[in-house]
Amino acid sequence: MKENFLSSIETIESLDPVWRQKARVRLSEQTRPQGSLGLLESFVERIVAIQKREKPSIAKKRILIFAADHGVTEEGISLYPRDVTRAMVLNFQRGGATINALARQVGSEICVLDVGVGSGTKNFSREKAMSEEEFWKVFSTGWEEAQKAAEDGIELLGLGEMGIGNTTSASAVVARLTGWEPDFVTGRGTGLSETQRQHKARVIDRALALHRKELMHPFSTVQCVGGFEIAALTGTLLGGAVLGLPMIVDGWIVSAAALVAQHMKAQILDYLFFAHQSEEQGHRRLLEHLEVRPLLNLSMRLGEASGAALAMGILEAAVRVYLETATFAEAGVSRRDA
Amino acid sequence: MKENFLSSIETIESLDPVWRQKARVRLSEQTRPQGSLGLLESFVERIVAIQKREKPSIAKKRILIFAADHGVTEEGISLYPRDVTRAMVLNFQRGGATINALARQVGSEICVLDVGVGSGTKNFSREKAMSEEEFWKVFSTGWEEAQKAAEDGIELLGLGEMGIGNTTSASAVVARLTGWEPDFVTGRGTGLSETQRQHKARVIDRALALHRKELMHPFSTVQCVGGFEIAALTGTLLGGAVLGLPMIVDGWIVSAAALVAQHMKAQILDYLFFAHQSEEQGHRRLLEHLEVRPLLNLSMRLGEASGAALAMGILEAAVRVYLETATFAEAGVSRRDA
Repeated sequence: MKENFLSSIETIESLDPVWRQKARVRLSEQTRPQGSLGLLESFVERIVAIQKREKPSIAKKRILIFAADHGVTEEGISLYPRDVTRAMVLNFQRGGATINALARQVGSEICVLDVGVGSGTKNFSREKAMSEEEFWKVFSTGWEEAQKAAEDGIELLGLGEMGIGNTTSASAVVARLTGWEPDFVTGRGTGLSETQRQHKARVIDRALALHRKELMHPFSTVQCVGGFEIAALTGTLLGGAVLGLPMIVDGWIVSAAALVAQHMKAQILDYLFFAHQSEEQGHRRLLEHLEVRPLLNLSMRLGEASGAALAMGILEAAVRVYLETATFAEAGVSRRDA
Repeated sequence: MKENFLSSIETIESLDPVWRQKARVRLSEQTRPQGSLGLLESFVERIVAIQKREKPSIAKKRILIFAADHGVTEEGISLYPRDVTRAMVLNFQRGGATINALARQVGSEICVLDVGVGSGTKNFSREKAMSEEEFWKVFSTGWEEAQKAAEDGIELLGLGEMGIGNTTSASAVVARLTGWEPDFVTGRGTGLSETQRQHKARVIDRALALHRKELMHPFSTVQCVGGFEIAALTGTLLGGAVLGLPMIVDGWIVSAAALVAQHMKAQILDYLFFAHQSEEQGHRRLLEHLEVRPLLNLSMRLGEASGAALAMGILEAAVRVYLETATFAEAGVSRRDA
């Protein structure tokens, strides 16, 4: 299984420059000053080149929310009790959460995937978060969700998560893969005080020291200090890129999974749209490190794919502009003076 | 006429703190960490307090695009010939422009208003852009559009413009009202070179010197160096605030009109949502000067209310979250540990 995934990951390619160029030409013929839609134009260019279609479409949308619990909550790194993860999963299923309202607004399906609610990871400040077998099982679940989406004709995937304690896992993964100090990438999560945040950073520091010798590979980093949702998200991201699906990365936790995926195969970034710059400490710098620009910067820090849902609306608008705007010739509008 | 407008403007009030507080309480009871939706929460709070409704709605949306020509184009400050203004108005009316695609995406009406296409302002680097009578006539047209919108049950107005040469007028107005150097607030418009941009700044510099003694009032500034669309937009903004309409300010030109309105009555800012930070030089600093945060920052520089249309989608999503998210009590989710 492991070898199959690894060889598939190697097939992820940069986008076709011919299709990118086709999109650029069409954009430049439309009735507006060249480049005046800024980032929207680069988003459309990538969607066209991912789909390799004259008429791109991202109308069929699905949001995947991977939910899991975290043993490291024993260390008192979250203000919320662990049972909130399960309660929020029920809330998603009943349609009562913030993400349900946002998904209805943009016309997206939602799937909530339990990849370890209740059972959860071990306390990674004392032992490995999960076994290698568990890692591959959950990674595989994530990968299969990308396959299911492709089979169902989904044209745009939004990725999100729920899991009390998961900003701690994400911070540990980011600290390890970037080499940044845990203190720098450890934020206030759902509302910690500065003292509580420092405690959380020390827990991560200790964990990285404990697992020092086993953090040599991006996947073993996830296994030692990550979470089940991060493992699953990494699988979806890599599987989705293999299948040529445009995907929206939500906030801090999904970005951590994107960083893992990028360490496996840098080309994956061509397939990803980063929804927003979250308030979580370190997220701005992580986005800069990946050399990506987020669609939104609204000081959000919710997770649940909430930023991804908002970004779906923006991307759909950009595609619509690409499909429906008249050219200078069609509209009889003069181009700029030569 | 003039006196009636001036006394109406005086009635614009800050938002009711009781309604703001009601909105904050409801937001804090919903199933997510407090404040985790960042700016979206402050937007909703203002919409609730503007509408004074338990169940706010911004479903009925209208985009107003004011179009006009500019005599200052004689000075060679735009790459596009002046007849593009009229051609683009036709393009809007036929539904072929970028804003038409965006408005369809967010489900908004569009009205295009000719407030001086063809005839246009005088070349303000040599004489006043318009007479006082012309100013009030066009200001009044803008104000009446706010009234019509209110009568038609419109719940959210998006404001935009079209007019070859109008970044030059907007820069002149902003330079005068802020005291900033013309060079600092003069951008590349639809794609000037640096040399052309410097020429444009010198034209503004000359004009501000020429009209020096008559720029004492925000409205006379618009009359001397503004444009008909800026005069109309100022009317809509002030009239809309008097009538309690939430309004979205698009980019550089509409922001210049918002600055004029804010000089007339600072409380107007409570009613305004700034769609995006445009690429036009000085816009970031103007937003900071007004102490407002834009919804988007996508390096756009198109105008046509394009940013306002995208922002409509975000605001509607925020309102939907407010209306549809379950409370902690309803969902049986634990609040944070005390």
